[in-house]
Amino acid sequence: MQLRHFHYWGIIACCLLTTTLCGQKRARELGIAPGVLTPGKLNSITDVNGVLVGHTTLIKADSIRTGVTAILPHNGNVFQQKVPAGIFIGNGFGKLAGSTQVMELGNIESPIILTNTLSVSTAMNAVVGYTLQQAGNENVQSVNALVGETNDGWLNDIRGRHVQEQDVLNAIKNAGSNVTEGNAGAGTGTVCFGFKGGIGTASRQLPKSLGGYTVGVLVQTNYGGVLQVDGIPVGEELKKFSFSNQLLNNVDGSCMIVIATDAPLDSRNLERLAARSMLGLGKTGGIASNGSGDYAIAFSTHAGVRIPHQPDSTVFTMPLLHNDYTSPLFMAVIEATEEAILNSLFMATTTTGYKGRKIEALPVNTIKELLKKYNHKP
Amino acid sequence: MQLRHFHYWGIIACCLLTTTLCGQKRARELGIAPGVLTPGKLNSITDVNGVLVGHTTLIKADSIRTGVTAILPHNGNVFQQKVPAGIFIGNGFGKLAGSTQVMELGNIESPIILTNTLSVSTAMNAVVGYTLQQAGNENVQSVNALVGETNDGWLNDIRGRHVQEQDVLNAIKNAGSNVTEGNAGAGTGTVCFGFKGGIGTASRQLPKSLGGYTVGVLVQTNYGGVLQVDGIPVGEELKKFSFSNQLLNNVDGSCMIVIATDAPLDSRNLERLAARSMLGLGKTGGIASNGSGDYAIAFSTHAGVRIPHQPDSTVFTMPLLHNDYTSPLFMAVIEATEEAILNSLFMATTTTGYKGRKIEALPVNTIKELLKKYNHKP
Amino acid sequence: MQLRHFHYWGIIACCLLTTTLCGQKRARELGIAPGVLTPGKLNSITDVNGVLVGHTTLIKADSIRTGVTAILPHNGNVFQQKVPAGIFIGNGFGKLAGSTQVMELGNIESPIILTNTLSVSTAMNAVVGYTLQQAGNENVQSVNALVGETNDGWLNDIRGRHVQEQDVLNAIKNAGSNVTEGNAGAGTGTVCFGFKGGIGTASRQLPKSLGGYTVGVLVQTNYGGVLQVDGIPVGEELKKFSFSNQLLNNVDGSCMIVIATDAPLDSRNLERLAARSMLGLGKTGGIASNGSGDYAIAFSTHAGVRIPHQPDSTVFTMPLLHNDYTSPLFMAVIEATEEAILNSLFMATTTTGYKGRKIEALPVNTIKELLKKYNHKP
Amino acid sequence: MQLRHFHYWGIIACCLLTTTLCGQKRARELGIAPGVLTPGKLNSITDVNGVLVGHTTLIKADSIRTGVTAILPHNGNVFQQKVPAGIFIGNGFGKLAGSTQVMELGNIESPIILTNTLSVSTAMNAVVGYTLQQAGNENVQSVNALVGETNDGWLNDIRGRHVQEQDVLNAIKNAGSNVTEGNAGAGTGTVCFGFKGGIGTASRQLPKSLGGYTVGVLVQTNYGGVLQVDGIPVGEELKKFSFSNQLLNNVDGSCMIVIATDAPLDSRNLERLAARSMLGLGKTGGIASNGSGDYAIAFSTHAGVRIPHQPDSTVFTMPLLHNDYTSPLFMAVIEATEEAILNSLFMATTTTGYKGRKIEALPVNTIKELLKKYNHKP
Repeated sequence: MQLRHFHYWGIIACCLLTTTLCGQKRARELGIAPGVLTPGKLNSITDVNGVLVGHTTLIKADSIRTGVTAILPHNGNVFQQKVPAGIFIGNGFGKLAGSTQVMELGNIESPIILTNTLSVSTAMNAVVGYTLQQAGNENVQSVNALVGETNDGWLNDIRGRHVQEQDVLNAIKNAGSNVTEGNAGAGTGTVCFGFKGGIGTASRQLPKSLGGYTVGVLVQTNYGGVLQVDGIPVGEELKKFSFSNQLLNNVDGSCMIVIATDAPLDSRNLERLAARSMLGLGKTGGIASNGSGDYAIAFSTHAGVRIPHQPDSTVFTMPLLHNDYTSPLFMAVIEATEEAILNSLFMATTTTGYKGRKIEALPVNTIKELLKKYNHKP
Repeated sequence: MQLRHFHYWGIIACCLLTTTLCGQKRARELGIAPGVLTPGKLNSITDVNGVLVGHTTLIKADSIRTGVTAILPHNGNVFQQKVPAGIFIGNGFGKLAGSTQVMELGNIESPIILTNTLSVSTAMNAVVGYTLQQAGNENVQSVNALVGETNDGWLNDIRGRHVQEQDVLNAIKNAGSNVTEGNAGAGTGTVCFGFKGGIGTASRQLPKSLGGYTVGVLVQTNYGGVLQVDGIPVGEELKKFSFSNQLLNNVDGSCMIVIATDAPLDSRNLERLAARSMLGLGKTGGIASNGSGDYAIAFSTHAGVRIPHQPDSTVFTMPLLHNDYTSPLFMAVIEATEEAILNSLFMATTTTGYKGRKIEALPVNTIKELLKKYNHKP
Repeated sequence: MQLRHFHYWGIIACCLLTTTLCGQKRARELGIAPGVLTPGKLNSITDVNGVLVGHTTLIKADSIRTGVTAILPHNGNVFQQKVPAGIFIGNGFGKLAGSTQVMELGNIESPIILTNTLSVSTAMNAVVGYTLQQAGNENVQSVNALVGETNDGWLNDIRGRHVQEQDVLNAIKNAGSNVTEGNAGAGTGTVCFGFKGGIGTASRQLPKSLGGYTVGVLVQTNYGGVLQVDGIPVGEELKKFSFSNQLLNNVDGSCMIVIATDAPLDSRNLERLAARSMLGLGKTGGIASNGSGDYAIAFSTHAGVRIPHQPDSTVFTMPLLHNDYTSPLFMAVIEATEEAILNSLFMATTTTGYKGRKIEALPVNTIKELLKKYNHKP
Repeated sequence: MQLRHFHYWGIIACCLLTTTLCGQKRARELGIAPGVLTPGKLNSITDVNGVLVGHTTLIKADSIRTGVTAILPHNGNVFQQKVPAGIFIGNGFGKLAGSTQVMELGNIESPIILTNTLSVSTAMNAVVGYTLQQAGNENVQSVNALVGETNDGWLNDIRGRHVQEQDVLNAIKNAGSNVTEGNAGAGTGTVCFGFKGGIGTASRQLPKSLGGYTVGVLVQTNYGGVLQVDGIPVGEELKKFSFSNQLLNNVDGSCMIVIATDAPLDSRNLERLAARSMLGLGKTGGIASNGSGDYAIAFSTHAGVRIPHQPDSTVFTMPLLHNDYTSPLFMAVIEATEEAILNSLFMATTTTGYKGRKIEALPVNTIKELLKKYNHKP
């Protein structure tokens, strides 16, 4: 128990965006700054006005390395004030709950929850309960819980299904604008490119001339391929990549991608935005393998596009960005996804878990040497 | 408790396909036989070789009118011996869990569960547990539970979330080839066209010259529109249909449609088969309203198209029906869906539930008069 | 040639919506009025404000029985003033050109053209040329021509590809608010349920309390199944339906469905509206057979939702109907589709064409008797 | 005219895969070898058994810089011997004809044609004519021509619509296993990342242990973003990328991607294979901008999966690769797409065209310096 709390607080303490107690540094602190656009203030999904993120990190005894991450589109009653949303399915080998309703109605009506594969239903239960009990929802009889997952079964005793409803509620309750990265929340037990993965986030803010909008991304990384760090062939250099031993070994896992923007986009253009995030995943060397559940969920926090559950009138007026002006947002989401994924790797720490299995963190010193070798410039 | 058992067994007793203790008759017994094709022996989804159906019906005190229905593609380990499957989303206002993986991988790896809207997560939990514990699944770490729902919140205290995991497991355990229709399982508290809906089933067997295949359908009916019974304008005659009072009253609800066939179809053609079932729903007067979650799940039980979880070799050989020969199956699924929906209505009984609300069964005597009036012939 | 003109004008003369020189009557004139909603003034897609329809009918010598139908969302420059649109693919065995761009961008930028299967490319060429030459389009370098088709190869020498670009331009030029039905335009040579099919149209106007919007439908019918006329089993009575001889004979063909509304819908809800039209097709007995290309295209003519090709600002404001108020429109499109299909049949006339093949018109007198037999009331 | 022939033959002469008369070298000849897998013998889509590619290159006078590229799945009658196929729509702002039928029926029945945006209909006409006239197709009345495009309107007088049907037929007739890259066929006038784009191809052959299958890719490149060459930030170094001047300048254009494999995949897995190619596009720095038509078409040439137009029996037997073994193919298509795109750039030559506009070829010497600077190793 004590151990647990030690770990728990230890991780929170060391991995807050702005601290470096563990020595873990975000990609950009190491001079790795993918793309040509500028991040927002926190370089986080929470740069998008109103977005909050919370974790519950479960590290217990030898075998429990899992958790929950909650992303809130705004801090009000999301059921009563829905936000437009789109979902893109990069590869559907995953248990994302709630997708069909989002795609049909074009909106999100609950916090977005990420957890492990076998705890999706527990998280749904929690979100349903949470929504039913929110003030103003006394008559609600239908709730579309949006819950994604990746499979942390290598480091975590996933069959034990250790996530409890209260863990989910805590993640929602704890949500704020500081996002712990690496081994946190739903990323506690994940593995990416053979290294410790986890939660990562990043953002881009468009220049005024291109609209001035912010795009933020949060990822839960747990997938394989041939790692490339801002163009540097790390996977090849370390001889550690999918099929490197010419066997069909474990390349699977998944990547959940959550995207927020303050641009006034409708569900159609949010779905298009979501689709572009897969190109950012591709830039890190991801291959969307057969067993990967790669889903991107995008929503808009623009005040003008909120959708009231009980509208005042049948017709409401929405400001909408014209199709022609969406391309800079597409570029932004690609860059932010790439950097969020890198952050999930750079902020994660070596982890030993289920059955004594150990997954090393990205070897930062080696990476630094590779940065030099390849003349990478900040 | 006693009351519950009384009700429970009473319903089972009166609504078995072949009995008529309640006086409830299936559509065909009343001379209502939509279409031109011939039903299978039981006129049930269980006419399709290997398919089993089980219910748990929850009728307790004043307010609990809900339940669970389980459809098993075969009586073996479905995770180890998956069946090809396709899903069609008629209208996505629903919480169907598991859809994206079925659509990506083209197969089903668990029993299909139907229940009420707010119990989807409980049912998922149960299916995950069931699968993890099945013999042979000791190393399984990822389970795609396929759980659909409709909203029985008019007659049932749905916010109470009274379905327990054990109820789901019981439905699976009880599965057999007799299908109780009407107020049973997931149809215990549903409402359709303003009358008591529920579970219904039907089948069609193609003549030898068209392949000789069987198509079976099971529905959970809970939707609105303008009821038409084999062409007879019942909704209009009874002046009871959606918007009949020119107000946007409750037309919502949903229809879950599960389709089985022994034809050797791959996931692409199963998805096409699923899509046609919506035409059968249309023939009953359904309108797939905004709030309706209308999903069709189709799978094949043909022995040759099973997909082993751990294949012996990388390439396996599948017998596949050529596209050109699918049309009779399309016709069959339309007819069977129409008749399954009618059976769900004709077999249901008047129900009083939550807050004392009462929903009448279809007035069979009036229907009989209408059959006469419109010179309907058996 | 003379023969051709005779036929051509003869048909136009006899089949205008309001005349009955040929004795052909629309369904409603015979007392057949599917559904519970009220048609618009003309009971035509042109009841929707601004919509225009034009035909070119090609009847030449023994073998040419084909044509072109053009539907214009408005009478301005559609490329410069696009309209929001959605497409639903009921069954994709068809050559609809332009669909992917409509689905991606959510709008239509050209007239919609219907013709025969092998003339789609000719019609595209014509639409591209038409658009390039429109005043205001001098710098346009990309045009998304939206061209649908059904296969009239039974009555028409389709391999001869007799449609010329000028025929398409004429259909656009001739567009007006009177819609000739039956053997006209793209419906000149089509066959439906074994009878002569063709062009049909119908509309519904919602009561004020449900929004007061109009929904109009135009169909090009060329498909099979088991004909049902407002619930009356005509196909069964006439023993003329798909597979009635238990052989896999020709059930194919297709149905193109074009839907217009003045409700302020975005592309997402227009796609949902389009999807419902298949339920109307189902009510006529259609089965969406393997070889049928069943596509529905829906657009909104509401002034507020027009999308300028060159917007004044990056963000524009759109009035949008809330999801919750779309269901009456769904009901309207189902009814209007059913009636439009019936009109295409009732207004068509017996036709002899390619290789001397003859397709009879629907036997109206027999239908009248069946109406009586089944006590159908107007 | 003479000029034209000079250019025409000159380009063919200089850009054949194995020659370097122009000094143009393929990426791999410059030591640029993306990924970890090995190319096939020709490093071309034609490494996939049976696949043939042909071009018609149109360079006339000052303004015509366009052409046609034909890809044949095999050298027989493709209509009679269809191949399974899948299509992925990366961004649907494009005029790809034939997509819906491929996606519905899961197969291709004609050569795949690439050309310019406004010539799609001409190419369709040609393919329809070609198919109708092929021996064995005397009774064919329906042809699904699959024609893609990108917009070469910057260098080419696209509004002049200079592609003739005969040009398409010639491309088919000329098809062979040598693929001219760069300014050839449909790539004659295209622009990519601000440099001259065009046709490129590449392939990967899996090691025996991963199945031994070959994946080949052919691209028509005409899009924008921030060019990255095997990880080297060329676009940033040259300060030439989308929005580099902070204006919404022309980033549009498109990328057509054609994928062949000899692995026994069905349409579902071919669609998944197609989807992965977008990750390869992402690795080059593409952003799938609003105006880009990014489509991937994948087909299998495996003899066992051919689909006869007129099958001998209703059920046929297909060898199919189990889902679990598809991941190496996904990796292969990503690598081959990246390299094919690079080849399209490296093999293209500086071009002056419409209105005297000039687009420079990729500055190979500068790239070589960047390779050195970034210590890129072959």
